[in-house]
Amino acid sequence: MKFTSLAEIAGLAETLPMVNAEAVAAAAARQNSLTKPPGSLGRLEELAGFMAGWRGTARPTISLAQAVIFAGNHGICAQGVNPFPQEVTAQMVGNFMAGGAAINQLCRANGAELSVIALELDRPTADFTTAPAMTEADCMAALQIGWDAVDTRADVLILGEMGIGNSTVAAAMAAALFGGAVAAWVGAGTGSDAEGIKRKIAAIEAGLARHQGLSAMGVLAALGGREQAAICGAVLAARAARIPVILDGFICTAAASALYGADARLLDHCLVGHCSAEPGHRKLLAELNKRAVLDFDMRLGEGSGAALALGILRSALAVHNGMATFGEAGVSEA
Amino acid sequence: MKFTSLAEIAGLAETLPMVNAEAVAAAAARQNSLTKPPGSLGRLEELAGFMAGWRGTARPTISLAQAVIFAGNHGICAQGVNPFPQEVTAQMVGNFMAGGAAINQLCRANGAELSVIALELDRPTADFTTAPAMTEADCMAALQIGWDAVDTRADVLILGEMGIGNSTVAAAMAAALFGGAVAAWVGAGTGSDAEGIKRKIAAIEAGLARHQGLSAMGVLAALGGREQAAICGAVLAARAARIPVILDGFICTAAASALYGADARLLDHCLVGHCSAEPGHRKLLAELNKRAVLDFDMRLGEGSGAALALGILRSALAVHNGMATFGEAGVSEA
Repeated sequence: MKFTSLAEIAGLAETLPMVNAEAVAAAAARQNSLTKPPGSLGRLEELAGFMAGWRGTARPTISLAQAVIFAGNHGICAQGVNPFPQEVTAQMVGNFMAGGAAINQLCRANGAELSVIALELDRPTADFTTAPAMTEADCMAALQIGWDAVDTRADVLILGEMGIGNSTVAAAMAAALFGGAVAAWVGAGTGSDAEGIKRKIAAIEAGLARHQGLSAMGVLAALGGREQAAICGAVLAARAARIPVILDGFICTAAASALYGADARLLDHCLVGHCSAEPGHRKLLAELNKRAVLDFDMRLGEGSGAALALGILRSALAVHNGMATFGEAGVSEA
Repeated sequence: MKFTSLAEIAGLAETLPMVNAEAVAAAAARQNSLTKPPGSLGRLEELAGFMAGWRGTARPTISLAQAVIFAGNHGICAQGVNPFPQEVTAQMVGNFMAGGAAINQLCRANGAELSVIALELDRPTADFTTAPAMTEADCMAALQIGWDAVDTRADVLILGEMGIGNSTVAAAMAAALFGGAVAAWVGAGTGSDAEGIKRKIAAIEAGLARHQGLSAMGVLAALGGREQAAICGAVLAARAARIPVILDGFICTAAASALYGADARLLDHCLVGHCSAEPGHRKLLAELNKRAVLDFDMRLGEGSGAALALGILRSALAVHNGMATFGEAGVSEA
């Protein structure tokens, strides 16, 4: 689709596909016929059912796992919210392209095809303490790039991000969408010290004071960034193609939360790959009523926790599709 | 080695290899040079350091991952502790051999070579409410089979078990080794109802009353079973070859706990792959001061949780070995 306004996005929940309850039930019936005590594979069984429901088949498989990292730069860095220089965003994009980052290894180890989309790194968003981070046109352009990035042949989509300063952006979005004390949404990010964390909180409080009474998509434009908008666009494109999504950590989940704020159903097809060590993520997962696949004290971003969770998802489907039933194996039931 | 007595096992902690602290330090130095904020890969970094320490190299790899399932039958089934008939042990061994069980799929998905060792299934151990489950000679024979099963070319060893009735055996061993109320060690296992759980508790209490004042290895012989003894033998053989071990859930961990009771250092090279939904496992992990790799509501056994954790370990080493350093990638540090 082509986005024409931010206001139209909430309404998409009425037209985009919903979970296929028949496929979920068929997958559950299969699980209960396999040679194991019912329920004994725990969350692996849940994941198989989730995939079945969104792929619309009792026995879903993963032929193509697509991973996309969106990268952006942020005007809020002018407020001293990050210890790394802003050039690191482009340097890390180079590292992704050269295959040297964590996400490259995790995609290779877990069988995902990675692409990297750098979003106008030489044109950071505006400093949200003084102006909206993006115009509506800028925000929609980034949403469109995210939508267009999704390969509709994929069986699962892994989303990640890179952007110096974007843990501040994530905390600002989460605070605007869900409320609560700003400090509860803020952590050390890439490695802020106590003074750095104070600057993050002050910047976010200034941003929230300046931008009030916004819709969820308005929060995305005013406090978010291009990679946040692109993540939202990709989540929507995946939904349109019935492709389940694995979101990464705090920043990726906060970006997608704008869609949740618009209509909570828009994230029904999204898993969260891991619970980040960035403290706001646990709080955010509670708001979204999501349980992360993994909890591994990670806080890197790039899609790293989502790619790690892909391996678990592959195991869940290997079991679901490959096991013998009691009847096939000649094993007695209880 | 050839085991000559159960009493000698505690002393092995003095002669078997210990962790290589130099390799751990070298691995940590490498982690801190990689293109990510220090520590941001959380437990993946810990796992890489663990592998480095036991393999004795700063950059450990996994060429061969060996998985072994030991299967045994238990006289305690005479007390009605399991809803499945005892023939299911042999039927499931057949299922493992035919490739139809969960562990087959999980080994394939995560790159482990599986072997299955059935231990005199037609000669169950004695009912421990009336006699020691095994003679010392029986116990040592099973220990030896476990020792001999380990392929010393492996880089990591995954251990699992199968044996109708063996969640009762595991709970009995844990209660004898660590004390506490028997009920706190007992769960539904393959699917006992409330009456079945009462029978499990009564059987264990009778076993504990009959067999008192035993050494840890004495507990293994009196209350354990052949697959439990074989697991202990395999853990020791792996240690002798500096091969890290991934234990599976409650039953596998309880088996290895006999070694912990003999000398706590004997499990230093062991990870626990997952925390089982069987309630005694969390309590057991606390006793052993171990944190499981995964917590996934699984309770199947067979090595399933350990095989799933192998995928995580592979990802940890992929990152550790494959990432670029800040210098190599030309990325600025904070």
